[in-house]
Amino acid sequence: MMRVLFAAPDAMWPAWAPALRAACPEMDLRRDGPPESFDAIIYAPGGLDDFAPYVNARLVQSLWAGVERIVGNATLTQPLARMVDPGLRHGMAEYCTGWTMRAHLRMDDYAQDGIWRNAQTPPLAADRRVTVLGMGELGGAVAGMLSAIGFDVAGWSASGRGAEFAGAGGLPRALARAEVLICLLPDTPDTRNLLNADRLAMLPRGAWIINPGRGTLINDAALIAALDTGHVGHAVLDVFRTEPLPAAHPFWAHPCVTVTPHIAAETRPQTSAPVVAENLRRIMAGQGPLYLVDRGRGY
Amino acid sequence: MMRVLFAAPDAMWPAWAPALRAACPEMDLRRDGPPESFDAIIYAPGGLDDFAPYVNARLVQSLWAGVERIVGNATLTQPLARMVDPGLRHGMAEYCTGWTMRAHLRMDDYAQDGIWRNAQTPPLAADRRVTVLGMGELGGAVAGMLSAIGFDVAGWSASGRGAEFAGAGGLPRALARAEVLICLLPDTPDTRNLLNADRLAMLPRGAWIINPGRGTLINDAALIAALDTGHVGHAVLDVFRTEPLPAAHPFWAHPCVTVTPHIAAETRPQTSAPVVAENLRRIMAGQGPLYLVDRGRGY
Repeated sequence: MMRVLFAAPDAMWPAWAPALRAACPEMDLRRDGPPESFDAIIYAPGGLDDFAPYVNARLVQSLWAGVERIVGNATLTQPLARMVDPGLRHGMAEYCTGWTMRAHLRMDDYAQDGIWRNAQTPPLAADRRVTVLGMGELGGAVAGMLSAIGFDVAGWSASGRGAEFAGAGGLPRALARAEVLICLLPDTPDTRNLLNADRLAMLPRGAWIINPGRGTLINDAALIAALDTGHVGHAVLDVFRTEPLPAAHPFWAHPCVTVTPHIAAETRPQTSAPVVAENLRRIMAGQGPLYLVDRGRGY
Repeated sequence: MMRVLFAAPDAMWPAWAPALRAACPEMDLRRDGPPESFDAIIYAPGGLDDFAPYVNARLVQSLWAGVERIVGNATLTQPLARMVDPGLRHGMAEYCTGWTMRAHLRMDDYAQDGIWRNAQTPPLAADRRVTVLGMGELGGAVAGMLSAIGFDVAGWSASGRGAEFAGAGGLPRALARAEVLICLLPDTPDTRNLLNADRLAMLPRGAWIINPGRGTLINDAALIAALDTGHVGHAVLDVFRTEPLPAAHPFWAHPCVTVTPHIAAETRPQTSAPVVAENLRRIMAGQGPLYLVDRGRGY
């Protein structure tokens, strides 16, 4: 029987333990024990800092898609897999699609003030250009759902894989078309402050920004400035440099910012426990785990 | 060359005339002339009251999907076709999908008050039950788009055609499952006040109602009462018994009502002019027009 350490905050245990055990009954899941006794580690940030004593662990399976809080850990020599939860992927697609629809339909233009305004017919989705920055598992799912509705979607990625626009050279055109810009890039040295004042200026006037990726992608002060002039119409932000977002941060008070409390990429135990189970079975069978993190790239 | 009367309010002429002429260059489109000279009439409410003199018109083509303002006109003996605009159909699906996403994602729960709330993960769309009342051209398009996103959608129609639930007997179950209820029924004696106090009570607590169909479907006072108790969570209303909705109507002031100014079913000249053209060609070729109104049913 394989022995697995649950190295995640206590608050996660009640929801996760039953789901993990149901998905993988052949696993002996424990919250502590002699480090050398564990075959694998299930990890979430806050659960473990020193991986060195776990000399027999053949896998560290993150429960989160984002691994920036562990990928630089010098004690981590074991293979690291990130979570690719089909529920998270679908939930992220729903979040981005919902807020894109809110932007597209101009829902916020309908003031409930007793005045019947003869509104201009909004364009159909086919005439609304959306750009997705980051075309990995999540970006691809978002682009797929938006395309199913009929939006004119284009993707950008550093490598160009699965995307219409590639690399630094393709970014200006990807931004220039983005009536709605969806940010799903990982946090890496290359993506930090990607959306600075210069890049925000490349967006069409009134563009919406939806960021459920990483808070570090955006220069906060540059975004506030662009919102103040109306160049950026609205920002829907789910991730921040400091979380919880401090009460005094100007994002909270800005009329053109919607703050959501890091909910877009919730990992759901019911849909992700089977992914953990499959990876555990693979390593016990001597196969390579799925969704291995490239430590060099950082994701 | 066929001669066609444009019998619609003056304000529509600038947008419609070029689109209609481009779609049907063989048509002589005019705003007036000897009634007996016209082969067909293109109609919108407010454009014409007395159809009797148009003895040679083989078709009255409505530019609107809803025909309740003409169907009872005793002077109308010519065949009447309603508009089935692919753009309108898609626009309606977008409107309903957008507001369903807003309900589903509980967007309005994220108060922008500086307090970071650890929100409960919302269910995935697959676990959200949506019921569509009326499964004709529009209801079918709405259900299709919602299904593409993954919602658990069921339809209800009087006849049961294309729907999971049928007739008066099926209505209680269709309502009981409706976390989101979308109303796309025509205005007929059978549908007037369909959503009265008894029927609203059949909805699950907190249900959202989205009504881009007809204002007469809902008993306004019963809806206000159900919103006041919280039994109905929110109503998004695009159509009303009196339009424009009077400034003093309680819908405007209710915190759980969103009023939109009859925008969901906008007919777009670019996508509907080709439909008009096809019907004109059909009658000139001696074929029956598409989308004929059944005067007995009223739609």
